[in-house]
Amino acid sequence: MVVELISVGTEILLGNIVNTNAAYLSEKCAGLGLSCYHQSVVGDNEGRLEETLRLALKRSDIVILSGGLGPTKDDLTKEVTAKVFGKTLYEDAHTKERIAGFFSQMRNGQVTENNWKQAMVPEGARVVDNHNGTAPGLIIEENGKTAILLPGPPNEIKPMFERDIVPYLNNLVPEGIYSKMVKLCSIGESKAETLVSDLLEGQSNPTIAPYAKTGEVHFRITARAADEKEADRLIEPVIRYMYRLFGDNIFATSEEVTLEDAVVELLEEKGLTLTTAESCTAGLLAGRIMNVAGASKVYNEGYITYSNEAKERLLGVKHETLESFGAVSARTASEMAEGAAKAANASASVSVTGIAGPDGGTGEKPVGLVYVGCQVNGKIRTEEFRFTGNRAKNREYAVVRALTVLWEQLMEA
Amino acid sequence: MVVELISVGTEILLGNIVNTNAAYLSEKCAGLGLSCYHQSVVGDNEGRLEETLRLALKRSDIVILSGGLGPTKDDLTKEVTAKVFGKTLYEDAHTKERIAGFFSQMRNGQVTENNWKQAMVPEGARVVDNHNGTAPGLIIEENGKTAILLPGPPNEIKPMFERDIVPYLNNLVPEGIYSKMVKLCSIGESKAETLVSDLLEGQSNPTIAPYAKTGEVHFRITARAADEKEADRLIEPVIRYMYRLFGDNIFATSEEVTLEDAVVELLEEKGLTLTTAESCTAGLLAGRIMNVAGASKVYNEGYITYSNEAKERLLGVKHETLESFGAVSARTASEMAEGAAKAANASASVSVTGIAGPDGGTGEKPVGLVYVGCQVNGKIRTEEFRFTGNRAKNREYAVVRALTVLWEQLMEA
Repeated sequence: MVVELISVGTEILLGNIVNTNAAYLSEKCAGLGLSCYHQSVVGDNEGRLEETLRLALKRSDIVILSGGLGPTKDDLTKEVTAKVFGKTLYEDAHTKERIAGFFSQMRNGQVTENNWKQAMVPEGARVVDNHNGTAPGLIIEENGKTAILLPGPPNEIKPMFERDIVPYLNNLVPEGIYSKMVKLCSIGESKAETLVSDLLEGQSNPTIAPYAKTGEVHFRITARAADEKEADRLIEPVIRYMYRLFGDNIFATSEEVTLEDAVVELLEEKGLTLTTAESCTAGLLAGRIMNVAGASKVYNEGYITYSNEAKERLLGVKHETLESFGAVSARTASEMAEGAAKAANASASVSVTGIAGPDGGTGEKPVGLVYVGCQVNGKIRTEEFRFTGNRAKNREYAVVRALTVLWEQLMEA
Repeated sequence: MVVELISVGTEILLGNIVNTNAAYLSEKCAGLGLSCYHQSVVGDNEGRLEETLRLALKRSDIVILSGGLGPTKDDLTKEVTAKVFGKTLYEDAHTKERIAGFFSQMRNGQVTENNWKQAMVPEGARVVDNHNGTAPGLIIEENGKTAILLPGPPNEIKPMFERDIVPYLNNLVPEGIYSKMVKLCSIGESKAETLVSDLLEGQSNPTIAPYAKTGEVHFRITARAADEKEADRLIEPVIRYMYRLFGDNIFATSEEVTLEDAVVELLEEKGLTLTTAESCTAGLLAGRIMNVAGASKVYNEGYITYSNEAKERLLGVKHETLESFGAVSARTASEMAEGAAKAANASASVSVTGIAGPDGGTGEKPVGLVYVGCQVNGKIRTEEFRFTGNRAKNREYAVVRALTVLWEQLMEA
């Protein structure tokens, strides 16, 4: 089965946004065993969109269009696709009701006339509810060709794809494709790839593909098999081998499990509670941990201490420590973690202090220097990092490294 | 002049990497006044690359190809382009020397036989030196059509584009392109577009394009003009008109300024200091504000109070308030903001309490119910929101709405 992607949006052609949807959809389709040979981007232009869609339908079985489903006159994806398939549009009562419901739940949520445009769907199309926005997804099938229309915003397209499009596509592929993800932290991409290179080379079923994420390395192991049981027989030996290679670095063997999930699970398992003390990350670390539903079981409170005075008053960092070693030091990170645990009466704590940039760096303490402190059951550890990104990137890395240090400490606890 | 981009690489089709080169090249080309109507991605496949290039040359004046210039047999971009233009390849002595020099400067730098493939160039092509890698850039002109071949790695393509391709393209375009961004919060996309629809309709120079972001609406106003002064003459009246329409909702008229930038600037301007008290967002709000470099001037500390006990102890929320109204209530949000300001000795504060989901909702207080409290110079305001996303989205919206309420309060202060 050959799939092709068309991203619709002048903002992509102008370079206003990076086309992350295409990367997301490509990875998903590859994981489902679909071949993808072409991707295109066109603007919100009727003639060019039509031409691009016709070409795509000629050379591929399934065309996934994303974007251009909004309420404005600019948004043409649905209209053009209906035209190409020779379908007329009608107002779908169910979708109209869903849109009305969506607006009634919003503050100042007034439906304007153009919103009803989103309730118009091509005859015969399958309507896929959007649980995070107004534009529905649409699946149109005809003469062995399929067009799948999805909304552009990443927070709408991703949940819709996972929930409704994956099962739909899975049904189309005769041999099942099964994959498992092995996720590592605390190891570099090239080192991980070098270690696994013999596996990467020889394998055709299952295949092993590396994906580098910020501070993490993921390996997707994909098998073609008649059923899940056969797939497991193919995949399991590879995972066992990777555990022998990387045991200490593997935090998950499932697509869905994030590093913060792994951390919260360990906290629960060991009956620990956590608190956080953040300077340069200023809440991003806590914010990420608390994205885990139910994390409230292991987390009650946290501290954002940007100023030295706050570090002293809220966390009990010693005045002399700040004077002698500075706010960005292993000693301060250690006292932050210790003080936070005491103040919050928590059995585990993690702290971050550093220079995110662009200002504030010195020869001795350059931009990107970050210390993480971590305390579990009274045992304290600190780590020094030197990042080389911009402010946002340095803070993002600091969060991942702090999570990694915490995960390692929890594994040993 | 119409430009078109072709990105060559199987790794993009598989979703292993995000196509940031396309975003980079698009933005650059738009800035140079080139129109871009099409972008494509193809793998390292001779037939498909040839077909894609022929189509691109038919509909566009300039085709920029990136990637596929490496030393391996897989890399075909140069060979296919030479074929399409009917050119043979010859070994370019200058490039061969440059490649040899490149390797001699590297540690362990051994030229392997296949590296000399990169010294082969099409007859008549202009060779563009690569100062950060081995593959040269190439410009091939024939019959009013131009193909520009650039290496794939971002650290090679960007400096080469800035240094040699920008001047080349600049020579081709008579008029420049200038744009300004008007950014609004506290208003829905469709409402904003409805209000501005007459402007959107009639304009051809400048053009006005809307962009929806989470909780924000951006309008890009783009003019074609001989110079910046003429562009300003075209753009300024539109901005003045938008101020009449949206004055209270406009927080920035510049591409670079974010909502948190606007908030921090107002705090500085008015000599105020800020603190935060977060429950369901658990640090994300503070984390976003502190992404503003230099925000430490207006922010010393913040509180993450997930448990009721933490709300009472750290922020002085009354026990009776939590008992009678619950943790997710306007009253609690208000006491959180008030208490945080007192505890941090800050003149402004913002608080968030809500039910992010997926659990914890009730009939009376459903998932997505969020209260924001905001206090500026002793004046308190609370707002109720009902979001309909998943946990991550509800938290993201809560952050933007809290920033918006704070911005509004600061504007009035």
